[in-house]
Amino acid sequence: MSKPGLPQGTRDFGSETVHKRQFIFQIIRKVFELSGFEPLETPAMENLETLLGKYGEEGDKLLFKILNNGLDHASKKDTALAEFEKILAGKNNKHITGRALRYDLTIPFARYVATHHNELAFPFKRYQIQPVWRADRPQKGRYREFFQCDADVVGSRSLLNEVELTQIYLDVFRQLNIEVEVHINHRKILAGLAMACGGADKLISITTAIDKLDKIGLDKVKMELAEKGLGVKEISIVQAYLAIQGTNEEKLEQLKRSFVYQSIQALASPDSNDKIDRSLEQGIQDIRYLLSFFPASENIVVDLSLARGLNYYTGIIFEIRARHISMGSIGGGGRYDDLTGLFGVPDIPGVGISFGVDRIYDVMEELKLFPATVQHSTEFLFFNLGLETVSTCFELLQQFRSAGIRSELYPEQTKFDRQFKYAEKKKIPFIIIIGTEELKTGIAKIKNLETGVQEECGLGELVLYAEKLNR
Amino acid sequence: MSKPGLPQGTRDFGSETVHKRQFIFQIIRKVFELSGFEPLETPAMENLETLLGKYGEEGDKLLFKILNNGLDHASKKDTALAEFEKILAGKNNKHITGRALRYDLTIPFARYVATHHNELAFPFKRYQIQPVWRADRPQKGRYREFFQCDADVVGSRSLLNEVELTQIYLDVFRQLNIEVEVHINHRKILAGLAMACGGADKLISITTAIDKLDKIGLDKVKMELAEKGLGVKEISIVQAYLAIQGTNEEKLEQLKRSFVYQSIQALASPDSNDKIDRSLEQGIQDIRYLLSFFPASENIVVDLSLARGLNYYTGIIFEIRARHISMGSIGGGGRYDDLTGLFGVPDIPGVGISFGVDRIYDVMEELKLFPATVQHSTEFLFFNLGLETVSTCFELLQQFRSAGIRSELYPEQTKFDRQFKYAEKKKIPFIIIIGTEELKTGIAKIKNLETGVQEECGLGELVLYAEKLNR
Repeated sequence: MSKPGLPQGTRDFGSETVHKRQFIFQIIRKVFELSGFEPLETPAMENLETLLGKYGEEGDKLLFKILNNGLDHASKKDTALAEFEKILAGKNNKHITGRALRYDLTIPFARYVATHHNELAFPFKRYQIQPVWRADRPQKGRYREFFQCDADVVGSRSLLNEVELTQIYLDVFRQLNIEVEVHINHRKILAGLAMACGGADKLISITTAIDKLDKIGLDKVKMELAEKGLGVKEISIVQAYLAIQGTNEEKLEQLKRSFVYQSIQALASPDSNDKIDRSLEQGIQDIRYLLSFFPASENIVVDLSLARGLNYYTGIIFEIRARHISMGSIGGGGRYDDLTGLFGVPDIPGVGISFGVDRIYDVMEELKLFPATVQHSTEFLFFNLGLETVSTCFELLQQFRSAGIRSELYPEQTKFDRQFKYAEKKKIPFIIIIGTEELKTGIAKIKNLETGVQEECGLGELVLYAEKLNR
Repeated sequence: MSKPGLPQGTRDFGSETVHKRQFIFQIIRKVFELSGFEPLETPAMENLETLLGKYGEEGDKLLFKILNNGLDHASKKDTALAEFEKILAGKNNKHITGRALRYDLTIPFARYVATHHNELAFPFKRYQIQPVWRADRPQKGRYREFFQCDADVVGSRSLLNEVELTQIYLDVFRQLNIEVEVHINHRKILAGLAMACGGADKLISITTAIDKLDKIGLDKVKMELAEKGLGVKEISIVQAYLAIQGTNEEKLEQLKRSFVYQSIQALASPDSNDKIDRSLEQGIQDIRYLLSFFPASENIVVDLSLARGLNYYTGIIFEIRARHISMGSIGGGGRYDDLTGLFGVPDIPGVGISFGVDRIYDVMEELKLFPATVQHSTEFLFFNLGLETVSTCFELLQQFRSAGIRSELYPEQTKFDRQFKYAEKKKIPFIIIIGTEELKTGIAKIKNLETGVQEECGLGELVLYAEKLNR
């Protein structure tokens, strides 16, 4: 049989990668827990009805559906074929496939909250770090299996939660040593813009278009807006909006002054002007409140072009960009009004953030930000010099490990050359030689494979010696 | 919409359970790494051809297969229906389902080694802690999604690897505070028994039957052996074998003396006697070698009835039983001759062990072995007394967290009663009250919710105070 491949868009993670990924996860996990977030884990598969219709038509198509077992059972065969035809017609069918792999962590979380809301302490702060699966077309940096890292507070409308989550972003990236900008905007500001452009129903057209500003440039954004039915006047409002520059406070001030008045003059109904005003005002006020907690931070950037694709956001929205590298967003989130309504439990608003671990990994690799200590492979290799000495080595090994020193005994009595090669390949820095001669004298040899220097040490002092070397 | 359920046989893990499971994983992971094992992670899904035929016919049926995406694409529809009929006929079909969820960690590991064997440092020591999925009928203690925790050394025939893995079992369970017996036997002893009972082809019948001794008792084992075609004489050999009692050494001695000679007399061909002898001798010798490394341990038990279901084992086999509780095996493993032959790479023997984390969890729960410190929820809750004091609390919060103290600020300014209830429900032991009065005097109130005792502390000393309380 030929060597088997991996499914498209999936990856094996060897030792080095696992350690580096764990380094990222551990920092995120620690900061979440210090801030009172509790871990949640949900199963990889959910009932199909839990997931369907939650991610739009596109999302439904990207679900990995699991074939029901026992379809070849005689009693089921009869109907199965007819039911399968429904799948070919693009419909979903419980008879053939009743489960799917989770597409994100938000819907499973919503399902969990809807099921347990009577037992939970609200505001409920949960974090979740698990893989998700999407049948997306694989490409550079986009995988079919990847980890999400989410923290959400639900059951509270307080802006202090946004403050808290901003602080978490800053803490995590400071500890990861990645310089970032936390871009913030507010859905109500975008809603004000949409109203100024003819109505709230323009919101999605406008956000979808300006979300691409970075990628396609202003001219193409304007073209897209025209295609979506915005007139010359409305497009000029959007353009004026996107042209707003300055410090955070200058942007907010300018937004209030020029844009609002401009749009008010451009519109007829005083009633709608009032609504625009209130929507904008609320957005600006929320952002100012958030900023007031970080007076010294230069890392928080009011970014009026930030839109976030997802429609369920209703308040402040976040996106994280790494400095010194072009990588797109490495995190994002925002406030939503209704987590669990789709599952029959209304009135649970919340706010959440997410870390894009795969991209964070890429940033850290490219900027060489992983500390050298992240690789913890074996530190000491006891050479195997045969039966007589092996039991002594084995005893010493237990002492080493009790002292927290990663160590191995080469399992085969073989040529030095092969044992050296093993140490080299595994990047083990020190080898210890105890042969019959050393057993007699009670003095072991320790060789530093990097420098080539060889030292000696009494067997009784070997652990202490290794601990010192190890520091 | 009604509240959505979970797929049969799967579970959500809330905060308490996650922390307890992490406690188990972390100890296992630490011991693995101290012993030079390197982590590996493979994708949840594998190509169907990688998994099919590796777990027997029964296993194939328990695979969770993933429906290919895009079956409703016009060009594929034509053939899809015909191909689906093959699935209904009990066959597998790449056109409909080309991938499946992994069933264990061994085959993905074998795939990985077969693919990367030119780059790896042999002997290759890897560990892997990931979930697996089986469409088994769910029942108490048996789930469709559960974690496996494996460590394997491949590319070495040395028995020191068995010694090492035994030590790992002892270390992990000592650290988990679970008293266990490591049961050991040897496939070559079982092979000797089979040969003495008429031929090596009896091995599977015999091991399958005696594997059930604990569950069904001796009489039923004998009935099963008779059904499998063993004669009266052969069954009495098995019975004599199973009757062997005593210390480890007594068992091995008795095995050699009585049983071998008995079977030699019972058989005709001197040639086969010689084979039985050598097979048994090898098994006994290997076990003695292993035991010689643990002269003082009362936790290692030679268990001649131990058989292990899987056919690929060829040497020493392990199984772990917890004392003081009836739970079945909480770990197992053994030596195999050929990991990757099925993937076209021959001659990679190895030995591996596995920890049954779900059962270990159950044992620890039932025997109350989880340390109290395993629950790390929030330690301090700052009450929210409104706008004026919130920014002071937020600053203090950052100091607390920098000092590694898990702490929260209640996000809403609401009645004390509600904030108390939140602390209670989350089992937060201390609350801190800073209102306008406390802001003026610079002295916070700290209340121990367990004792009801309230103390005071200057805002500047609050972190130190909390650190002391926390110890």
